[in-house]
Amino acid sequence: MQADFTKLDRAFNPRCLVVVGDKKESNFMWLNSQSTFKGKLYSVQIAPEEIEGIKALGVKNYTSLLDIPEPVDLAIVAVPRAIAPRVLEDCIRKEVAAAHFFTSGFAETDTEEGKKLERWLTEKAEQANFHLIGPNCMGIFNPGLGVRHNREQYAGVSGTVGFISQSGTHATTFVHEGHLQGVDVNKSVSFGNGIVLDSADYLDYFGRDPEIKVIGMYLEGVRDGQRFFRVLREVAARKPVVIWKGGRTEEGKRATASHTGSLAVSQAIWDAAVRQCGAIKVTRLEEIIDTIKALVYLAPVYGNRVAVTGGAGGPSVAIADVVAEAGLRLPLLTQESYDELATFFTLVGGGYRNPVDTGNVNRREMKRILEILERDANIDNLVLLVTARFGTNEQLERDVALMTGIRERSPKPVMAILSHYFSPEAVEEAGNIIQKFQGGGVPTFITFERGARALRNALDYYSLKNSLNPR
Amino acid sequence: MQADFTKLDRAFNPRCLVVVGDKKESNFMWLNSQSTFKGKLYSVQIAPEEIEGIKALGVKNYTSLLDIPEPVDLAIVAVPRAIAPRVLEDCIRKEVAAAHFFTSGFAETDTEEGKKLERWLTEKAEQANFHLIGPNCMGIFNPGLGVRHNREQYAGVSGTVGFISQSGTHATTFVHEGHLQGVDVNKSVSFGNGIVLDSADYLDYFGRDPEIKVIGMYLEGVRDGQRFFRVLREVAARKPVVIWKGGRTEEGKRATASHTGSLAVSQAIWDAAVRQCGAIKVTRLEEIIDTIKALVYLAPVYGNRVAVTGGAGGPSVAIADVVAEAGLRLPLLTQESYDELATFFTLVGGGYRNPVDTGNVNRREMKRILEILERDANIDNLVLLVTARFGTNEQLERDVALMTGIRERSPKPVMAILSHYFSPEAVEEAGNIIQKFQGGGVPTFITFERGARALRNALDYYSLKNSLNPR
Repeated sequence: MQADFTKLDRAFNPRCLVVVGDKKESNFMWLNSQSTFKGKLYSVQIAPEEIEGIKALGVKNYTSLLDIPEPVDLAIVAVPRAIAPRVLEDCIRKEVAAAHFFTSGFAETDTEEGKKLERWLTEKAEQANFHLIGPNCMGIFNPGLGVRHNREQYAGVSGTVGFISQSGTHATTFVHEGHLQGVDVNKSVSFGNGIVLDSADYLDYFGRDPEIKVIGMYLEGVRDGQRFFRVLREVAARKPVVIWKGGRTEEGKRATASHTGSLAVSQAIWDAAVRQCGAIKVTRLEEIIDTIKALVYLAPVYGNRVAVTGGAGGPSVAIADVVAEAGLRLPLLTQESYDELATFFTLVGGGYRNPVDTGNVNRREMKRILEILERDANIDNLVLLVTARFGTNEQLERDVALMTGIRERSPKPVMAILSHYFSPEAVEEAGNIIQKFQGGGVPTFITFERGARALRNALDYYSLKNSLNPR
Repeated sequence: MQADFTKLDRAFNPRCLVVVGDKKESNFMWLNSQSTFKGKLYSVQIAPEEIEGIKALGVKNYTSLLDIPEPVDLAIVAVPRAIAPRVLEDCIRKEVAAAHFFTSGFAETDTEEGKKLERWLTEKAEQANFHLIGPNCMGIFNPGLGVRHNREQYAGVSGTVGFISQSGTHATTFVHEGHLQGVDVNKSVSFGNGIVLDSADYLDYFGRDPEIKVIGMYLEGVRDGQRFFRVLREVAARKPVVIWKGGRTEEGKRATASHTGSLAVSQAIWDAAVRQCGAIKVTRLEEIIDTIKALVYLAPVYGNRVAVTGGAGGPSVAIADVVAEAGLRLPLLTQESYDELATFFTLVGGGYRNPVDTGNVNRREMKRILEILERDANIDNLVLLVTARFGTNEQLERDVALMTGIRERSPKPVMAILSHYFSPEAVEEAGNIIQKFQGGGVPTFITFERGARALRNALDYYSLKNSLNPR
């Protein structure tokens, strides 16, 4: 089916949203999730005992979708699977722009009944050119308009990231964890079994959405590989696309079969195709968050030479190993830089070859150190190490001002890596530090490894882009 | 120099401890750190303006070490490097059992003066058979006796881990982060430049300490490789030794030279030698904490076949990939297990091939599921996925009781992996969950990857041990 982007525009930016089949047993999760929704919200439910609860929420209920007195942009369908066909017929008759089927129990169960029902829904929707999202998924999230998956999600702010996920849990986790780390979504969609609209449709759509600057995807498989990679190549030429593929191993592939009924593909062929399209492959939730963070905040990364400063002796060794193991380099600085450092660096308990170790007294000279690294011709990227729960506020404000200054005036990518203990106090402070640096455009990563990997992935993206579409 | 373990016993379990040269500028960090010390604490300081502050702390000060009216078990020396030789002479004359030199500015600075001073200290100490710890280090931590490096460290509890570190920061971070995650130290030592007593001495000593069950080491190099590996082989035959080597890459090696002045060794030769001794290699702070946690809590790991349960669809795919990529297997269960699961498992939105996906309704059947996996002949190890901030307390208590029960009655290793958001509330709850599971002997890891890696490392340890010293 050819997706109609006018319909998707209505679904992703609804003015009128209807929840079909929400119930007390699930604590009216879908209606409650839309408490932040800025448009018109209706319910469709026929069970009298449920209608009571829906009225108590202040939501107008109808016993049929067809009775809704205005055009419907998005229907969220949470009925038992046996009723799904009837609801789909109503959606088609009512000319709903798109319906998200939360309902599960189809091909992913590997049962005859589930597969048969799924075939029926697919054929019916395709005949009617109906835009069905799912089934077996969490659907659309648009925080700017307050369209949500659950009540923990944020609303009222909107970022620049589009996220497309075959897993509802991964979509929800990406949205929440990303937000905690300053990576905000503009729109996301969890599409589960993807029986009518598939990943390629959402990718194509997000690729043309001017509000979306970076796209992340969690996929377990694609229906039409040729089409997917054609769209991927087109979109990746315009904006970064980062893809986390589940089912890379035999074990993982078996799990995807139970989960979304995806067919196995060879991982090597997949990886090569992703790369040929200019998209970036990642393998973890943490890595997709970090890589998107790097692509949202960092200046374009064109070199692999990194300078690190701000740490004590042991951490300087650790970050040097981690950066090198991520395929980046920590070169020696220029002789001019060493000559200048030698004029003020206190050589007790720390070196300045690179990393420039400032564990103790030398941290006071951070302004001069960062300026030397900014000028150094051997250095492409700057990394500042910071620690939650040990610095003073004054020092933090100074570090943020220095790094933000470089971010503004220099083409060299700058980032911070934040060490923190696994305690509520440290994580609270870490959250504040991340906000401060990122507020100034300096991405901040929460382990050495995650920071190094994100920088490396950003470098891969710009290198690939350059080789596929030379500047 | 041949270490005298009677002297090390006195130093690691001091009854009388003296801090030499503490001062206001550092906020009397060494005296303040010993506020938890249970034995006798004295200060040596000659500057009148400092003596004021020391008196205010309630610590008796002498102007010479020789005036202390009783035998001294451990001296902590924090004087400027130029004064270090004189203090060492006093320590020798006073027959102090051992002295920890916090003082830095020696060979690690790569200056003639630093190297000369270090040679002088080395020769002097060796001539007198004096047990010098350091210099350029944080020295001894014994939480049971309240001997600490800093005021943030815990005291009054004591674990079963010995930690030996060439880096003060890594020692301190291991101690604190480990404690937050339920890995408690019995004794640790940071030995910096290790000019007299080296890693092999501490390893030998901890190897014979009956209170220490697992040893962790952070090393940047060893002085006498032959001796180190001989001791390592002896100790690793008796208890697990986990080694994190800094300076694995060219970049890291250069950083170690500035840090502790360690000579570079070939990483491949090092790795092979560590393995031949039956010790376990790790490459990150996180990994050394997790691997030690696994070795402290898990039943001996003898098989690579893992069953996973407790997750939703997407996370089940993710953990399957991560477990397989760590070199472990997620096999199919036996037919009997599938037959039994089929009698009660609700097949909507989740599969039970392995992982046994219990995202939704099936979580209520956790008792039956875990019992099936415990019995299953295809399964060596059990992993339960849990999530902070989403489960009810009731569910958590039930999960803990079930897992603890298996831990007590079954030889199969059992562990939990805890997903959590990067928020203070989630980390607080995660801390409580870790404590509950680990209180019942079930180690709990904070990412899929860290849990899988720790299990794999524990398997490597027991496999190596078996092949080197067959049961």
